[in-house]
Amino acid sequence: MKVKNHQVAVFALGGMGEIGKNMYAVQFQDEIIIIDAGLKFPEDELLGIDLVIPDYTYLEKNKDKIKGLFITHGHLDHIGGIPYLLRQINIPIYGGKLALGLIRNHLEEHGLLREAQLIEFQEDDVVRFTKTSVSFFRTTHSIPDSYGIVIKTPPGNIVHTGDFKFDFTPVGEPANLTKMAKIGEEGVLCLLSDSTNSEMPGITMSERKVGESIDTIFRNVDGRIIFATFASNIYRLQQAIEAAVKYGRKVAVFGRSMERAVDLALDLGYIKVPKNTFIDAAQLNKLSSDQVMILCTGSQGEPMAALSRIANGRHNKIQIIPGDTVVFSASPIPGNTLSVNKIINQLYRVGAEVIHGPLNDIHTSGHGGQEEQKLMLRLLQPTYFLPIHGEYRMLKHHVKLAESCGVKEENCFIMENGEVLALDQKEASLAGKIPSSSVYVDGSGIGDIGNIVIRDRRILSEEGLVVVVVTLNMKEFQVTAGPDIISRGFVYMRESSDLINEAQEKMEEHLRQLMVNKTTQWSEIKNEITDVLGPFLYAKTKRKPMILPIIMEV
Amino acid sequence: MKVKNHQVAVFALGGMGEIGKNMYAVQFQDEIIIIDAGLKFPEDELLGIDLVIPDYTYLEKNKDKIKGLFITHGHLDHIGGIPYLLRQINIPIYGGKLALGLIRNHLEEHGLLREAQLIEFQEDDVVRFTKTSVSFFRTTHSIPDSYGIVIKTPPGNIVHTGDFKFDFTPVGEPANLTKMAKIGEEGVLCLLSDSTNSEMPGITMSERKVGESIDTIFRNVDGRIIFATFASNIYRLQQAIEAAVKYGRKVAVFGRSMERAVDLALDLGYIKVPKNTFIDAAQLNKLSSDQVMILCTGSQGEPMAALSRIANGRHNKIQIIPGDTVVFSASPIPGNTLSVNKIINQLYRVGAEVIHGPLNDIHTSGHGGQEEQKLMLRLLQPTYFLPIHGEYRMLKHHVKLAESCGVKEENCFIMENGEVLALDQKEASLAGKIPSSSVYVDGSGIGDIGNIVIRDRRILSEEGLVVVVVTLNMKEFQVTAGPDIISRGFVYMRESSDLINEAQEKMEEHLRQLMVNKTTQWSEIKNEITDVLGPFLYAKTKRKPMILPIIMEV
Repeated sequence: MKVKNHQVAVFALGGMGEIGKNMYAVQFQDEIIIIDAGLKFPEDELLGIDLVIPDYTYLEKNKDKIKGLFITHGHLDHIGGIPYLLRQINIPIYGGKLALGLIRNHLEEHGLLREAQLIEFQEDDVVRFTKTSVSFFRTTHSIPDSYGIVIKTPPGNIVHTGDFKFDFTPVGEPANLTKMAKIGEEGVLCLLSDSTNSEMPGITMSERKVGESIDTIFRNVDGRIIFATFASNIYRLQQAIEAAVKYGRKVAVFGRSMERAVDLALDLGYIKVPKNTFIDAAQLNKLSSDQVMILCTGSQGEPMAALSRIANGRHNKIQIIPGDTVVFSASPIPGNTLSVNKIINQLYRVGAEVIHGPLNDIHTSGHGGQEEQKLMLRLLQPTYFLPIHGEYRMLKHHVKLAESCGVKEENCFIMENGEVLALDQKEASLAGKIPSSSVYVDGSGIGDIGNIVIRDRRILSEEGLVVVVVTLNMKEFQVTAGPDIISRGFVYMRESSDLINEAQEKMEEHLRQLMVNKTTQWSEIKNEITDVLGPFLYAKTKRKPMILPIIMEV
Repeated sequence: MKVKNHQVAVFALGGMGEIGKNMYAVQFQDEIIIIDAGLKFPEDELLGIDLVIPDYTYLEKNKDKIKGLFITHGHLDHIGGIPYLLRQINIPIYGGKLALGLIRNHLEEHGLLREAQLIEFQEDDVVRFTKTSVSFFRTTHSIPDSYGIVIKTPPGNIVHTGDFKFDFTPVGEPANLTKMAKIGEEGVLCLLSDSTNSEMPGITMSERKVGESIDTIFRNVDGRIIFATFASNIYRLQQAIEAAVKYGRKVAVFGRSMERAVDLALDLGYIKVPKNTFIDAAQLNKLSSDQVMILCTGSQGEPMAALSRIANGRHNKIQIIPGDTVVFSASPIPGNTLSVNKIINQLYRVGAEVIHGPLNDIHTSGHGGQEEQKLMLRLLQPTYFLPIHGEYRMLKHHVKLAESCGVKEENCFIMENGEVLALDQKEASLAGKIPSSSVYVDGSGIGDIGNIVIRDRRILSEEGLVVVVVTLNMKEFQVTAGPDIISRGFVYMRESSDLINEAQEKMEEHLRQLMVNKTTQWSEIKNEITDVLGPFLYAKTKRKPMILPIIMEV
């Protein structure tokens, strides 16, 4: 990192050119402020990987400089990395009320709650360090207690918007436009702003409008209502539960994350309902269909979530009955469209009515469209602009919006994860790179699976495996046992015995020849096996399974 | 099949409750008419499978009754199964001009062209058999020469719409409304109608409107235009090429299927252009950017297609240069959204401008919306209605539309593949089931991969594999060699030697004990290996790899 002493450095460990895995940092001299510590759920090509977190190497090496981790809001792509980060460096974590509640749950599951230093901030708090200080401004997003963060440093103020939209008729508190205007007036050296919807013209629909659609559904439906949404969208839960109360329905909650979210929202006072609103599965069957709502997880088609199990008849407490209406109060993220479609089809098959899709105004994004992004730019009037949180094309579009709102073209930077931007009032330039590769978490392993394992999994998944095992006596140059051929994921062995037998005979012949030639190099024997078997199998099947030669010596 | 002698049977071998793999049949006594023979590209969960075709067992067993295969249009999901079908039963194939051209190409690739009996029909032809006859009516779709098919049988006329929309300002010939009206007037016993867009209100945008958007792009862009679309959408190719000619651009074609489609369209006269319109890669570099258009495959993000290779710098003839504009004249099918997104991001990264998405009116569906489906229903006025070609929910919605257009509720049937509907003027009922499972094609193997292999591939892809191999002397009850442990796709072995060593020691101990106990049952030894190693590895890694015990005996 080649940052001059009077400059402030801004960099991302995750969140640039991708959705998820958000983690950003601002460093002035020996003070580092971290913003968010998210995780990312991997795309299909990372076979079997559970989740992806940023590389914390730089932070570990500089842990003495870290003043704190500041959380913009409680979504997993902003807090999900905390347990992994805390295992490496135990730093103070500052968050709003709900975010801290969610983090607490999360740390408890990982058995890390006891050591964690969790500090709640209010909007008007200022957290002061020696050279820098951190303050906050309320925004609107699809989860309560979402904040933008202002980091005051001697070279100037750095503002991070968090995820935001400008919902002028929100379900919770409105964004603090006044405070944003003042921050802008005071001067913003650099703005890091959410780019998710930079390709979407206009303004994102208000959460209030979704409430109206929910109300219409509850007014018109006679049967049971099964309402699926994101557990973290407390506003949506609140609106669904309020509609249930209004139309005389009791609420049964299914799915572990939904149960925890509802408990937390009740505990912290985000959802207020009459006593006896909630019922359990046993009570559910005693009420008539028009007296119940089932609130559940699985709106993204997750195969293990409540809704998926209900649709497939694998849920031990709820079956679909004719007259049920299932509401998908969510839009599928691109990678989940097929799974969601399957569940919708399945629900129709078993006799449910399904309400989903944008035509029903039953969901709205948590991120602002182009006009909202411009409003943020006009309020904050930054000198430098750094689009964050979005795929590359979204960052690119966001830069165009910034330029249209008066930010100079040469002051806009599209950065990669790990790239360091050094800033002062006069200039800004790239000043090196910190480690920033993705770290894969699979089971309990963190970072022990790399690209080689993933590559092997890909081959195995598409072509399967053929194991050739042989026991050799290397002193007498004899094949003592085998060669045996075993396959998995290649062909169904019982129905392909001719192929396997032929391959086995071929191998036998070659191995005998190798022994006649007194070959002692294992690598040579292994190569011979691979070189002969690969083309043979390809010629017969047009497939290229992974070939795994195993030699045992007696 | 329990169809009475005076009834006509209608059934699908594919195409019900799914998109793709279209194949339908109408049988009256000993005369079978087949409509379409499609294939389906598998979803991700069918790991490594190349394509899916219907089960042809029923047709093979009844091949003497088959009068012919009638093709509605030339899309792969309607003709792609033909090479596989012809290998089992060589029957006459009737198709429109373009469909036959595409089938010819397809059969040539499979080395099957010589034996095939291909018969071209014109719209006014009637193909007569002893008891049944087949006639046609022109429809509009995203490929020229699309037809609906009428099968006259003694119990009544069966109509199959093929894929259709009603484009009143098409690029090619309009749908033959007059003929459809007459068919309706004459009486339709049963209508099989395309359900793809039954969830879409209104009318699908005209192909002509796409032409206007293309024109606007060509008028405004100065740099090179890289135009990606479906090779089979001849209208789109035509409109892009005409725009190129109009604005003084030469056309270079890349991607094998695109080259073949353009050649075929020129041969058959669907595209008419001045001489010297087409150029090759060498000439491309001699012209200025505003004088060229590159027409290529890859609009669905296919990793091996031209556009993907261009975006990733892996194309040997074209690199992206600043000022290039890439037009995605297609909308990604749900399973391809992520791949398309990746290519768009990559194109932006290397400096291209990208035009894509519904806001640009740069693509339209080939399938009619609800109003068009209703128009078909009103024109044909069927007694019985059978929605086809769509996921279950689309079939369900299509039934609602049919009911709103006067078809009796009890006369609408949502069928599964293989279910046989027996019909006459008085009644309709399910009359048995024919074999209808999906047949997987992988490499050169047809149907040799079943669910067990797929299940193994899934485990391998997510958790990897651990092989335990041991050589035993079963006479002296000794471990002669091993146990050795080899893994693939599980952990990176070089970095996990402790884990592997510990597992190996554990295995050794257990195997020695088994030998002491004089265990001779291989299955018992294998179970012991699996039972000990599985929980051990899970405890250490929280992963459950496939464990493959291999015992060799000397």
